[in-house]
Amino acid sequence: MRNLFALFACVLISTHISAQPNVAIKRIDPTNWWVGMKNQNLQLLVYGPGAGTLSYSISYPGIKLVKTSKVKNPNYAFLDINIAPSTKPGTCNIIGKSGTKTITRPYLLKQRDKIIKGTGVTSADFIYLVMPDRFANGDTTNDKFGDMADATVDANNPVLRHGGDLKGITDHFDYLQELGVTAIWPTPVIENDEQLKQEAPDRMQAGYHGYHFTDHYKVDRRFGGDEGYLQFSKILHQKGIKLVQDAVYNHVSDEHWMYKDQPTKDWFNNWPVYTGTTHKEQALADPHGAETDRRLLVDGWFTSFLPDLNLRNPYLANYLIQHAIWSTEMFAVDAWRIDTYKYNDPAFMNRCNQALLTEYPNMHIFGETVASNPYGLSYFVKNNVSFPFKSNLPGTLDFPLNYAIVDALKQRFGWDEGVSRLYQTLAQDGLYADPMKLVTSLDNHDMDRFLSMIGEDFERYKMGVTWLLTTRGIPSWYYGTEILMKNTRNPSDAEVRRNFPGGFPGDRDNKFTSKGRSKKENDAFDYVKKLTNYRKTTPALHSGKLVQYVPNEGIYVYFRYDNNKTIMVATNTNDKETKLETKRFSERMNGFTRARNVMTSETISNVSTLTLPAKTAIVLELVK
Amino acid sequence: MRNLFALFACVLISTHISAQPNVAIKRIDPTNWWVGMKNQNLQLLVYGPGAGTLSYSISYPGIKLVKTSKVKNPNYAFLDINIAPSTKPGTCNIIGKSGTKTITRPYLLKQRDKIIKGTGVTSADFIYLVMPDRFANGDTTNDKFGDMADATVDANNPVLRHGGDLKGITDHFDYLQELGVTAIWPTPVIENDEQLKQEAPDRMQAGYHGYHFTDHYKVDRRFGGDEGYLQFSKILHQKGIKLVQDAVYNHVSDEHWMYKDQPTKDWFNNWPVYTGTTHKEQALADPHGAETDRRLLVDGWFTSFLPDLNLRNPYLANYLIQHAIWSTEMFAVDAWRIDTYKYNDPAFMNRCNQALLTEYPNMHIFGETVASNPYGLSYFVKNNVSFPFKSNLPGTLDFPLNYAIVDALKQRFGWDEGVSRLYQTLAQDGLYADPMKLVTSLDNHDMDRFLSMIGEDFERYKMGVTWLLTTRGIPSWYYGTEILMKNTRNPSDAEVRRNFPGGFPGDRDNKFTSKGRSKKENDAFDYVKKLTNYRKTTPALHSGKLVQYVPNEGIYVYFRYDNNKTIMVATNTNDKETKLETKRFSERMNGFTRARNVMTSETISNVSTLTLPAKTAIVLELVK
Repeated sequence: MRNLFALFACVLISTHISAQPNVAIKRIDPTNWWVGMKNQNLQLLVYGPGAGTLSYSISYPGIKLVKTSKVKNPNYAFLDINIAPSTKPGTCNIIGKSGTKTITRPYLLKQRDKIIKGTGVTSADFIYLVMPDRFANGDTTNDKFGDMADATVDANNPVLRHGGDLKGITDHFDYLQELGVTAIWPTPVIENDEQLKQEAPDRMQAGYHGYHFTDHYKVDRRFGGDEGYLQFSKILHQKGIKLVQDAVYNHVSDEHWMYKDQPTKDWFNNWPVYTGTTHKEQALADPHGAETDRRLLVDGWFTSFLPDLNLRNPYLANYLIQHAIWSTEMFAVDAWRIDTYKYNDPAFMNRCNQALLTEYPNMHIFGETVASNPYGLSYFVKNNVSFPFKSNLPGTLDFPLNYAIVDALKQRFGWDEGVSRLYQTLAQDGLYADPMKLVTSLDNHDMDRFLSMIGEDFERYKMGVTWLLTTRGIPSWYYGTEILMKNTRNPSDAEVRRNFPGGFPGDRDNKFTSKGRSKKENDAFDYVKKLTNYRKTTPALHSGKLVQYVPNEGIYVYFRYDNNKTIMVATNTNDKETKLETKRFSERMNGFTRARNVMTSETISNVSTLTLPAKTAIVLELVK
Repeated sequence: MRNLFALFACVLISTHISAQPNVAIKRIDPTNWWVGMKNQNLQLLVYGPGAGTLSYSISYPGIKLVKTSKVKNPNYAFLDINIAPSTKPGTCNIIGKSGTKTITRPYLLKQRDKIIKGTGVTSADFIYLVMPDRFANGDTTNDKFGDMADATVDANNPVLRHGGDLKGITDHFDYLQELGVTAIWPTPVIENDEQLKQEAPDRMQAGYHGYHFTDHYKVDRRFGGDEGYLQFSKILHQKGIKLVQDAVYNHVSDEHWMYKDQPTKDWFNNWPVYTGTTHKEQALADPHGAETDRRLLVDGWFTSFLPDLNLRNPYLANYLIQHAIWSTEMFAVDAWRIDTYKYNDPAFMNRCNQALLTEYPNMHIFGETVASNPYGLSYFVKNNVSFPFKSNLPGTLDFPLNYAIVDALKQRFGWDEGVSRLYQTLAQDGLYADPMKLVTSLDNHDMDRFLSMIGEDFERYKMGVTWLLTTRGIPSWYYGTEILMKNTRNPSDAEVRRNFPGGFPGDRDNKFTSKGRSKKENDAFDYVKKLTNYRKTTPALHSGKLVQYVPNEGIYVYFRYDNNKTIMVATNTNDKETKLETKRFSERMNGFTRARNVMTSETISNVSTLTLPAKTAIVLELVK
């Protein structure tokens, strides 16, 4: 892949050949393409001073320039080309003419390599969400660059860049594999070459988290650049770990090159005065929703420095869709996590999802849709409700379930409270076309840390971990939760994005090793590790059917089973031990007399009555 | 109608003609039928000692005895008859033979009268829920009967009978009509001839509420008997008020004649040991629900003294369905409220609903389905979710909305709290096939009184009333809430079923009159009355479209509109007055410059900014 990358890099260099001094082609996006894609159509964005004033032609066997489109801004041209299936890889020339002047730009059409892309993540996986800047600094030479807008780095300042990078992650693959991780989802690695932003009246913040793109076709050099990301993907796949890429379609940084020189007036959702989004997803699925609220949700800006992309602009839509396919093909992406999904134009998202699935049928795509309840969430994913608009998104982050797990651990048991919240949330799964494709979690980089939400109670922590790893869905895990990292988002999000101890030069502790962890941190790490590794070899916990029982007096019981195994998870959320008669569960327990406690390896010789310690979820493999 | 009733009453008298001394026909149910029904089939239940040992025949033009079925209990026979469309009204003889002995029973086939039945209730109506025993005693001669199992009456003992009756309601029709009532839903009037029941370890209770049937074909004499109910229906329809009857299919009293002499072993859901229902509706709509929990919900008993009917028994199903049709035809019922809907066999309910709708296509049927969330509720009514089982129930009581209204008034405003709960609940209306057919409420006889739930705050009371009477759905109203009756269900349900003051002999106050009401009670009564009467003449509030806006800082705004009128409801749930810029609502307000405040009749000459007093929902009719 390195050779191909060299070719790709060379294409990035702009070439000025015999053009008028003031006319130039500075870039063509996508920066390269491939022959043999299922979709034969490609729309090239050609950018440079006066690029929109040129007449274009391409002469290459199999390539047909179908149409050249121009917009009001003379610096842009859009070339629709068709690539016949018979087309051979190679470099074609894109020729722009203006009067007697000619600009010729080589454009690389690659052979697709043999690496399988878009293998998807499934409920057999365990996804690790990591913020590269905050996990580990594997290369101190790339911490900052004088030619970038923000040239600061300070690992001790929560809101500045800390110097973590992709190599920091690969350096700790053994740690991750010990933890049972099978897929890594880094927060975005695309270039955020921007100055510090005013995140709050009293607070500046760097784009360390990656969600402020300034150039879609560059990986941030501080994370390792394109080459570093290619290496990351390569090593990761060699280790059998999958790559989840984090996409942002809703907005870009106000320092994105396209915002500085906007292709069309409607490239962004520009408002007469600054207008923020409502963040309220309800307006879309609400038959009584006001059009105004729908527009505000989708077209309102996320913050004043994140210009909202108008995804209804057809050129922009092509640009973003092609970037998703290009990234998948270039970096061997297995699955996409889509940021701020609910803020995106729904029709665009369906087109984008379909384009990816056409090229990569096994790919998984899941949205970040913060939603207050399952109904609201179901609108944004394939569902069983006859909404006027039907989403084709295969999966989504399951926020309502995350909230319910936390409530189940925080609240006293009641008709609708405590563990009844967890039960009732799963009981609404009939809304989703396939609840097994939802991505579950205990926390993430935009929430208070799990341990802090549940009052730093280690017993409840283990209950939550057990539910996450044994109920339906694709579990995801926020870095550091396994070593009991805690904090709330007060005063800023950066508090829940602290460094992983041991990842940075000068760190006193190294919690990547058991020696560096406290007794309790090892207890937590070992608990998670034991359960993820058991899960890994237990298909009943991936694709097995879930059957749950009405919680009773704080006791919540469910089963996962397939033809080979039956796993029983029995939770006592109360503060004292209890004996549980299991006759009520005979529908699932008939034929089993004994059990093995997965976490303690203890054998239970008679399952007719179970002892449930206080605040404990026991995981039993039933034995005949 | 009185003549018809006389004929009907005579059929109730059992006749013993030339039979063996030990064989008799004591009753045939339905007690009569009609010619000209859409469904030509009728299944008669014939009961008496040895009734199941007889051979039956019927000789009457148009009538065909298709089949006689017998069961293990020799006291029952089931006769399937077909009534040809050409059949003339009259009395046919049902002849039972045993050897040389013959029993002949006359059976009346009536002409259908001209009164239109099953006119339905719609969102133009305002339903008054009244407990006859507790509203007013219109006839002190029927308070108790020495030949009934419970011969007590004591208006001062909350758990005993108080002597209220149907005449007590008709006596106060003027009061109800002043309040804007257009439909009356009495709790069941069917005979509850049973002893006091042990409702709780420390508490006996009479069947004053009516939900413990002992004979489907008798109206309780203490409410006025069959004749009293016919009179009630007649007067009510003369006044233009509709009748909602309360059906109970889930259970009967353990003193029901059919429980004492059970037709078949599976007529009731009999368990080896007493097994209560879970009351948890989730198990049915939950794709992960356990079969055991589904069975417990549906077949478990409501209480130990309420035998659970097995609605899968085909004879029982016919018996109950025919009783519903018989009641509709006999008493000119306009709509049915179905008690404990979620506990009933779903397939039976669909058959029963369809049978009623076939005979009375405009009828409204709504279930009592206590459900924690809209998804759970939607399973039991016509919905937009592809559940494996599809309910055909046209409407349901909307418990999630009732809870949301109370939360909106009790909780501080937040992302998901306070008035956001109301907004978010309505935002899930896409679940229902027709949310306009849902029956809304602020409280009922099984909940704490509305005023008590909201901290006895009169300003919040008016907000809740305003929402109920201006948002979507068919509003229902629990007697006494208009005069600020309060209380919780502690120590017993009877606390929220106190007498309406002025309805009973010796009452000190008479709150049926403005003179008898305190200043505050009159304020409440007048507020409700003004809004219901405005609503009555404002179709925009019945069938107009609802558009609601995302609540913002405790302010919640929605519109109801049709081609003729636009009503704006703007609520300030905060504790201090605020000014509301209305530019955000221009989608609905464009073209309007002025408004009339419906409650104060004040004119607002400029609607670009509205003054919203603290804790107030203002109702504005917009003017061009």
